[in-house]
Amino acid sequence: MAMGNAKAIKIGICGLGVVGQGVWKHLRRNGKLLEARLGVRLEPVRAAVRDLEKSRPVRIPRDRLTDDVMSLARDPELDIVCELMGGSDLAREFTLAALENGKVVVSANKALVCDHGREVFETARLGGGHYFFEASVGGGIPIIKALREGLVANRFDLIYGVLNGTCNYILTRMEAENLSFEDLVKRARKLGYVEADESLDLDGIDTAHKAVILGFLAHGRWMRLDEMLVEGIRRVTLEDIRQAAGLGYSIKLLAVITRDFESNRMFIRVHPALVPRGRVLANLDGAYNGICLSGDIVGTTFYIGKGAGQDATASAVISDIADAALVIKGSHKLLLPDEALSIHEERSTPCGILPLEEVVSPYYLRLTVKDEPGVLAQVASAMARHEVSIASVVQRQATGADRASLILTTHDSNEYAIRRAVAELGGLTSCLEEPFLMRIADFDE
Amino acid sequence: MAMGNAKAIKIGICGLGVVGQGVWKHLRRNGKLLEARLGVRLEPVRAAVRDLEKSRPVRIPRDRLTDDVMSLARDPELDIVCELMGGSDLAREFTLAALENGKVVVSANKALVCDHGREVFETARLGGGHYFFEASVGGGIPIIKALREGLVANRFDLIYGVLNGTCNYILTRMEAENLSFEDLVKRARKLGYVEADESLDLDGIDTAHKAVILGFLAHGRWMRLDEMLVEGIRRVTLEDIRQAAGLGYSIKLLAVITRDFESNRMFIRVHPALVPRGRVLANLDGAYNGICLSGDIVGTTFYIGKGAGQDATASAVISDIADAALVIKGSHKLLLPDEALSIHEERSTPCGILPLEEVVSPYYLRLTVKDEPGVLAQVASAMARHEVSIASVVQRQATGADRASLILTTHDSNEYAIRRAVAELGGLTSCLEEPFLMRIADFDE
Repeated sequence: MAMGNAKAIKIGICGLGVVGQGVWKHLRRNGKLLEARLGVRLEPVRAAVRDLEKSRPVRIPRDRLTDDVMSLARDPELDIVCELMGGSDLAREFTLAALENGKVVVSANKALVCDHGREVFETARLGGGHYFFEASVGGGIPIIKALREGLVANRFDLIYGVLNGTCNYILTRMEAENLSFEDLVKRARKLGYVEADESLDLDGIDTAHKAVILGFLAHGRWMRLDEMLVEGIRRVTLEDIRQAAGLGYSIKLLAVITRDFESNRMFIRVHPALVPRGRVLANLDGAYNGICLSGDIVGTTFYIGKGAGQDATASAVISDIADAALVIKGSHKLLLPDEALSIHEERSTPCGILPLEEVVSPYYLRLTVKDEPGVLAQVASAMARHEVSIASVVQRQATGADRASLILTTHDSNEYAIRRAVAELGGLTSCLEEPFLMRIADFDE
Repeated sequence: MAMGNAKAIKIGICGLGVVGQGVWKHLRRNGKLLEARLGVRLEPVRAAVRDLEKSRPVRIPRDRLTDDVMSLARDPELDIVCELMGGSDLAREFTLAALENGKVVVSANKALVCDHGREVFETARLGGGHYFFEASVGGGIPIIKALREGLVANRFDLIYGVLNGTCNYILTRMEAENLSFEDLVKRARKLGYVEADESLDLDGIDTAHKAVILGFLAHGRWMRLDEMLVEGIRRVTLEDIRQAAGLGYSIKLLAVITRDFESNRMFIRVHPALVPRGRVLANLDGAYNGICLSGDIVGTTFYIGKGAGQDATASAVISDIADAALVIKGSHKLLLPDEALSIHEERSTPCGILPLEEVVSPYYLRLTVKDEPGVLAQVASAMARHEVSIASVVQRQATGADRASLILTTHDSNEYAIRRAVAELGGLTSCLEEPFLMRIADFDE
C-alpha cells in the first residue's frame, strides 16, 4: 500500500481542446490526491493534437505531443486513451483501433456514442478493451454512474432533464433579462457557448444525442433520432416566456424518456417545455444541467451540476479514468453497458417504441390569427374535432396590427391528436403563421 | 455470459424491519433485472430476526429465518450480510464478527459508522472483508458513490445539505400550513416519521452522524460530535418561519462541512439555517434530502431524493450489494475509505479543525425583550462591543403584553464573536428569554 510502489497507469489524450487541456491539468494538479484515493498513480504521458505549434494555456512539453492521432491507439505504453476530439470520422476510427488493441477508451463524445455505440461496444468486447463515457452526458454530474450503479436496483419509468447548457442559458436569460432569442444567441456566440454547428445546440440535436445514451442505458434500445420527437428552441419567443410565466411556468428545453413496462415500450422526446415554477428543474439557472431519474424503488431523484466547460467535463473524464484504472489494476471485468442490458435482459424481450397515440401530455399552443370575429370558434371547433380538450385561452392583440396572439393550453392529449389538430389549425385562412406547440411538463414527482 | 451459469451471490439479512423487508422484497422482485445488469445472481437466503413468530407484510419462508443473529456472521454459505438492525451494541458485535470471517457487510447504520467506523474498517482490513454503507447517508441518493467515485478528481471545500427527512417534513409543513412545531411533531409521530429516540431527529444528532460520515469521506478525519456545532430544530417557532419568509428565506436543518485547504482544517456544523428562496435546497419538500457537493474541479453539484423509508433505503442497500457482488466476483480489491484517505493522504498531514473564530456566517437572532425605551440601544451596543455588525432589525410587539420580539440579522461574523454577543444579550435584564440564534446559509453557488 506504500505510495511509491503503486503501479502507474499511463494515459494518452487525443485532442487538446479545452476539455483535453483540463484533463491533463487536473490529472497533474490533483495527482497526489488521486493516487491517495485510488492506490494507483495516474500519469498523463502523451497527447495528440492537430497543430503541434499552437500555443495553449496549459503547457505540455513538446516531446509529449504528437500530431499522429492513430499512433496513440497503438502505443503499447498506454493503458488508457481519452478520445476528446469530438466529431465522428477520425474519432470513430481512433476509438475502434484503440479498442482492437485492448485499450480502455474514455470519451466525452456523445455523438459518437449515440451513433456508433453498438459498434464501439462490440469492438471493445472482441478486443478485450473497455469504453467509458460518463462525460458524454451531464458534464460534471456523475449521472451515468448514478443510473448504472447507484440506482442499479431500479427500473426507470421516467427520466427527464435539461441536458444542454447553451439552450438553458439562452432561455434563462430571456426570462431574466427580457431579451429576445436572437439577442441571446448573439451573446452566447460571443461567450463561446455555442457549438460551431449551431444546430446541434439550438435544434435540440445535442440534447437528443444525450437522451439516446440515457435511454439505451436505462432500457437497452438505441433509439434513432428519426424515431423520436426532436424540436429545438428557435421558435420560442419572449411572448411565450411571458405567457408561460403568467401561467406559472418556466420554459426549458427538456429531454423526456418514458417507458411503459406493461407494453414494454419506450419513447424519447426532446422539446421546449413548460415546467411548473417551484419544480427543481424550473429553477435551473444558466449553464447548469439537471436530470431527474425516477425509479420504481428509489422514487424520484435529481442531479444538478455544470453541464459543460473545461473543468466540469474534465472532472467526469477523470472519474472514468479512475474507474478504468481500478479495472486495469484489479483485472476486474466490468460488464459493458450492452452486455449488462441488451444481451442479458433486453435482447430476449427487446424494448419497443410507444406509438404517438400513447405519448401523452398537456400542451401549450400559440397561434397568430387575424383579429376578427369567429376565429376563436374556428379554433375551438378544430381542437374539438381532434378530441383535444382546451384548458385555458388567452387572447392578446398585437399592437397596431390586425393580428392577435391566441395562447391555448390543453388538458392531457396525445402527440397524434395534437399534431392533427395543429395541422388543421395551420391550414385555416385566419391563421397567419405556423402554430407553435410546446409541451407542459407537469410530471408527478 | 449465459444467465444460467452465473454464480449466485448468497445474501443474509440481519434485521427485518421496514428496510430489511424492503431489501428482501426488491432483491426477489427485480432479481432478473439485477442478474441482467450485473451478470451475477443475487440471492437472499437467510434472515435474522428478534421474533420468529411476528407476522410481517413481506412473507419470508419460516425455514429462512433464525433468531440467532450471530449465526449469520459465521455462516459459511453467505457471501454478503446486511446489517439493518440499527443500534450500536449488537450491530457492532455482529459487524465485527462478520468482517473477521472475511464477509462483505452492507450497512445502513449511520450511528455505527459514525461512532465505530475506524474499528470497522480496521477489522475489515485484517479479516479480508469489506464494508459498504451507501444507505447510511441520504437514503436512496447515491451520495457516497458520487463523493467517492463520480467526483473522485475533486477536493471539496464545501459540502452542505438537508440530511434528515423528519426535520425537513416538520419545517416544510410549519411553513406551508402555518402550524406550530409541537403540532407537526405530533403528526410526524403518528405517521411513524420520528425515531423512537426523538432526540436523534429533533436535536440534529442523526444529521450530525451523517455529516461526520461525509466529512470523513471527504477529508479523512472522524470528527466527534462534541467537536462540532450541533443544534436541532426544537426552538424554531412559527414566528421565525414567518420572519424568515419576510426576509426571503426558508428555514432548513442543515449540515455544513467546510474545509480550508490552506490551513488544512475542517469544521462541521449542524443547525437550523435560513436558506435564500430560489436556492435548490430552500425548495426541498417534505421528506426529501438534498446535498450539495462543491468540488474544486466540478464546481457545484446537487443531489436530491427521498431520505428515508423502506424503498429508497432498500435501493441504496441493493446498490451496495451489487457493488459488493462485483468485488466478490472479480476478486477485485477496492480500497476501504480509510485506506483511500487516512492512510495515503491524510495520515501524513491529518486534517485539523477550524477554530470558532474562523467559522464565518451571517446570523439571524430573535430576542424576546421588555417593550420599553432603550432596549434596542442596549442590544446594538452589545453587538457592537463584540464587533458583530447588524444588517437589519425588525421589532414586533407581542399582543397584549409588555414584551416584544426583536429580529436581527447580521453581516458576516464568526461563531466566537456571535456566541459572546449572545451570552451578553442573554444576561441583560431587559432580555426575557434565552436568545435564539440561527445561521444564514447564503453560500456562493
